[in-house]
Amino acid sequence: MSSDTGPARLDELLTAAVSAFPVIAAADATERMAWLHAVASGVAAGADELVRLAAEETHLPLGRLQGEVQRTSVQLELFAEVLQEGNYVDAIIDLPDPSSVLGPKPDVRRMLVPIGPVGVYAASNFPFAFSVAGNDTASALAAGCPVILKAHPGHPETSRRTAELVLDALRGSGAPKGSFALVEGMDAGIALVQDERIAAAGFTGSVNGGRALFNLATQRRNPIRFFGELGSINPVIVTPGAADERSASIADGFVASFTLGLGQFCTKPGLLFVPAGHRLVDEIVERTQEVSPGKLLYDKIAGGYESSLRDLQRVPGVRVLVDGGLGDGLFAAPSLLSVSGAHFLGSAEQLLTECFGPTSVLVEYSGEQELLAAVQAFHGTLTTTIHSTDMENMDQAGLVPLLIRRSGRVIWNGWPTGVAVTWAMNHGGPYPATTLDYTSVGATAIHRWLRPVSFQSAPAAVLPAALSDENPLRLVRRVNGTLTSEPIRR
Amino acid sequence: MSSDTGPARLDELLTAAVSAFPVIAAADATERMAWLHAVASGVAAGADELVRLAAEETHLPLGRLQGEVQRTSVQLELFAEVLQEGNYVDAIIDLPDPSSVLGPKPDVRRMLVPIGPVGVYAASNFPFAFSVAGNDTASALAAGCPVILKAHPGHPETSRRTAELVLDALRGSGAPKGSFALVEGMDAGIALVQDERIAAAGFTGSVNGGRALFNLATQRRNPIRFFGELGSINPVIVTPGAADERSASIADGFVASFTLGLGQFCTKPGLLFVPAGHRLVDEIVERTQEVSPGKLLYDKIAGGYESSLRDLQRVPGVRVLVDGGLGDGLFAAPSLLSVSGAHFLGSAEQLLTECFGPTSVLVEYSGEQELLAAVQAFHGTLTTTIHSTDMENMDQAGLVPLLIRRSGRVIWNGWPTGVAVTWAMNHGGPYPATTLDYTSVGATAIHRWLRPVSFQSAPAAVLPAALSDENPLRLVRRVNGTLTSEPIRR
Repeated sequence: MSSDTGPARLDELLTAAVSAFPVIAAADATERMAWLHAVASGVAAGADELVRLAAEETHLPLGRLQGEVQRTSVQLELFAEVLQEGNYVDAIIDLPDPSSVLGPKPDVRRMLVPIGPVGVYAASNFPFAFSVAGNDTASALAAGCPVILKAHPGHPETSRRTAELVLDALRGSGAPKGSFALVEGMDAGIALVQDERIAAAGFTGSVNGGRALFNLATQRRNPIRFFGELGSINPVIVTPGAADERSASIADGFVASFTLGLGQFCTKPGLLFVPAGHRLVDEIVERTQEVSPGKLLYDKIAGGYESSLRDLQRVPGVRVLVDGGLGDGLFAAPSLLSVSGAHFLGSAEQLLTECFGPTSVLVEYSGEQELLAAVQAFHGTLTTTIHSTDMENMDQAGLVPLLIRRSGRVIWNGWPTGVAVTWAMNHGGPYPATTLDYTSVGATAIHRWLRPVSFQSAPAAVLPAALSDENPLRLVRRVNGTLTSEPIRR
Repeated sequence: MSSDTGPARLDELLTAAVSAFPVIAAADATERMAWLHAVASGVAAGADELVRLAAEETHLPLGRLQGEVQRTSVQLELFAEVLQEGNYVDAIIDLPDPSSVLGPKPDVRRMLVPIGPVGVYAASNFPFAFSVAGNDTASALAAGCPVILKAHPGHPETSRRTAELVLDALRGSGAPKGSFALVEGMDAGIALVQDERIAAAGFTGSVNGGRALFNLATQRRNPIRFFGELGSINPVIVTPGAADERSASIADGFVASFTLGLGQFCTKPGLLFVPAGHRLVDEIVERTQEVSPGKLLYDKIAGGYESSLRDLQRVPGVRVLVDGGLGDGLFAAPSLLSVSGAHFLGSAEQLLTECFGPTSVLVEYSGEQELLAAVQAFHGTLTTTIHSTDMENMDQAGLVPLLIRRSGRVIWNGWPTGVAVTWAMNHGGPYPATTLDYTSVGATAIHRWLRPVSFQSAPAAVLPAALSDENPLRLVRRVNGTLTSEPIRR
C-alpha cells in the first residue's frame, strides 16, 4: 500500500489547519512557548530511536545525527526565546496629530501578525534540523501558523516517527488539533503549495525541485510567498598573504569543510580561489587523498552527484587532482578539481553550478584583477569566505562590497559549513541561494511567516496587548518615531 | 516621433544604474538624506507648474493636486527621517560564545543592506504621490537603491517635468549619475522587469497590469521580489448601533469617501454593509444624488469603469439606487447599487471585484450571522472598516480577527480614503490588495528594498558603522539577544 497522502486526506488536514489557525494566532506567547518547549523535549527524549532510524535511512554517521537532533531542540528553544522577548512583532504606534501639515492624523498602530497555514518541504540532507521538527516548522509555529509538512522521501521512517513525537508533544501541551500534520508523496507536495488554504511555504532542497514549487506558488490565483533555499556554491577566497602565512591550517580546514557529511551541505565550499602555483594546492591534494570514502544519502543524490561531477570534469581547462569517483552501493570518496583563473572566467556558468557531494574546485588565480573579475561573475550564494591576514584585512574595500551583493553571509578566516543557531545568523542570499533572499536559520527566520497590519483609531478594548497604551508585554515600541519601552500616558 | 524608451536607451540607463548602485549603497545616511531633502524641495519649488500640467492631463481638481504635491514632499522627508533615526537597518550582533552547547559560536553581525537597482511602475491616479517622485522612489533611494521609473502614460508631461526636477535635485545634491531615470512605453516597462540588472520592483495599478508584471518578475531566470499594489474593495461595516446613533454623519462620510477623486482611489470603499431596511440607506441615496459629476482620469479608466459598472448591475439581486452613468468626454456622476446579504453571498465573487470609479454597493445584511458569513467571503483587501458604538466595541471578538486576516489596515469609525504618511501606516494586504503583503506607504516601506547580510568573524576594519563595537550611529541594536544602544566593551 502506498504511504502517499491522498487528496481526501490532504483536504482533511488542510481543513484542520484552517480551523486551528485562529486558535494558534490568538494564543499568547506563553502558550506557544510551551508548545515549542514540549516539541524540543519530545524530540530530545526520542533522540536514540530517531538517530537509529536516520542512520539507516541516510547513511549519515551517528555522531553527526546525534548532534543534529540536539541542534533541532536548540532551534525550537531559540524560537521560544524569541517569543519570550516579544519584540519580533515590531510594534509601531503613531498617536493622533490634529495639526499635521497634511491634515489631522489618526491614531495608527502597526504590528506583525501570523500569515496563515504554512506548507513546509523537508530537506534530504538534514533529517532533523531541516525536516519535520526543523527550522521552518519551529519558526512557523512560533509565529502562530499551523504547519503542514511534506516529508522527504529519503528518510520516511525518521519523518513519521518525528511527526508522532511532534504531534504527541503538541497535544500534551495544549496546542489545538490541526497545528501540525505530516504528508507524504510528490502529488501531495504539489497539491499543498497550490491549495488556497496555504498562505506561505518554506522549502530546503535542490534548485530544480525548489524552482518548480516556486513556480506553482507564484502561478496560483492568489500567489503566495515561497521561501525556497535552493542551491549554493559558497566560494572561498584565499589571499596570497593567508596562503603564505598558514597553508597547513587552510588545507586542513578546507578539506574538512568540503568533505563534511560527504559534501552534502548547502554550505559546502564548492570553489576555493588560491594563488596560482602556490604550495597550498599540493597540501590540499594530500589531505583530500587521506579522506575515507562514505555512503551518500540515497540513490537520487548519488545519480545527481555523478552527473554533475562528470559535467565539471568536462569543462575546458579543468584538471582532475583527486578522482574519488563513485563506487558501488552509494560509496564515494572526495574528488578535487582545478582550473586556472582564466579558464574559470571562460566557463563561469558551468563552474558556478552546484555539485552536491564531496567535490570542490580549486581556482588558481593570477593577481587581484583576475580575482575581482571572477567574483563579479558569481551568482547568488548563501556564503562567501575570505582567508586573509591582518594586514590585508585593512585593504578589502574593493572586494567586500562585491561579496555582500552576492551572498547572505560573509565569513572571515573560517568555513561556511556549520551555521550557528543565533539571533544574528543569516542563512539566505540572492537567487538561486534562496527565492526571496531571506533567512531560514536564526531568530529572524520567524519574519517569513508574519505580515503587517495597522489598527486605525481602534478602541482600547480591541487592541492586542502589543499595541495597547499600557504596554503590558514591556515591548520596545516605536512611538511617534522614537523607540521606547514606556507605556503611553495621556 | 514616439516618446517610448527604446532598447538601446534602456540598456544605457540600466548600465548607469548598475554603476551608481555601489556608490549609493556606500553613501552614508547624511548624504542620502541630502538627496531626499533636495528632491522634496525641488518638487515643492516646481509645484505650481506641476499642478498645472497634472490638472490638464488627469482632470483632477487643483486643490487635490496641490495637496498631493505637498504630500509627495512630506513622503520624501519621512524617509529622510527614517535615515536620520537609522534603526531601519535592524542591526543584530552575537558575540562569540566558546561554550555553546552546539560547539563554539563565532562572532556574527547582521544588518539590512540595499538590494540593488529597483524598477518602479507609476500609478495613473496619483500623478505625484505614487508616481515619479512618489513613495516607491523615495523609499528605494532612501534604502540605497537606484531607481528606474516607468512613467504612467496617463500623465506623460507631468512625469517628464517631475523627472527633470528629480534629476536636477539629485545632481545638485551630489547623488551619482544613474541614481534615477525615467522610461516610457509599455515595451520598456516589460523589458525593465525582465532585465537581470533589476533586483526588485514596485508597482501601483490594476490587478491585470500588476499581475502580468508580477508573472514576468517571477518567471525570470533569477526571480525577483515584485511589490505590486493591485486591487482593493475596502469593505465598510456599519453595525445596527452605529446606524441608529449617527446615520447622518455616516451617510456624509461614506458618500464623501467613495466619491472622493471620483472614486479613483485604491482605498475607495466599494462595499458598505448596512442593517437591512435601515433609514441610513435613504440618507446615502440623497447625499449621492447631490454629488456633481466630474471628469475621469483618462479614456482607458473610463472604459474600464463603464464595463465593471455594467457587470455589477447585472449581478442577480442588484438594484440601482442612483444611476450616475457615464456621459460624453469622460464625465461621470456617482452611481449607487444595493443588494441583500443573501444575494451578496450568492454572488460574492462578482461583487468583490473592484470597480475603479465613483460607484459603491450597499449590502443590506440581516443579522450578525449573515454579516460574519459575508466577511468570510472577502478576498484580500487594503482596508476594512467598522462603524460601531462604544458598547459594541466591547464585543468584536468574532469580527476583528476575520478582518485582520483579510486586510492590511482595520479602521474604526473612519473612512479608508486618506492614508496617513506615518511610521505605523500599513498600506498593503493579502492578494490581490498586494502581491507580497507588504506596505508601500509609511516608514516601513523601506524594508521592501533591503535584504539581510551577516558578517561572520569580520575584522573591525571592514565592519559597517552600524555593526561596529563603538556604535557611532547610536543605534538600538540587539546584542546577544537584548536590545541596547550601548557600545560593545570587551
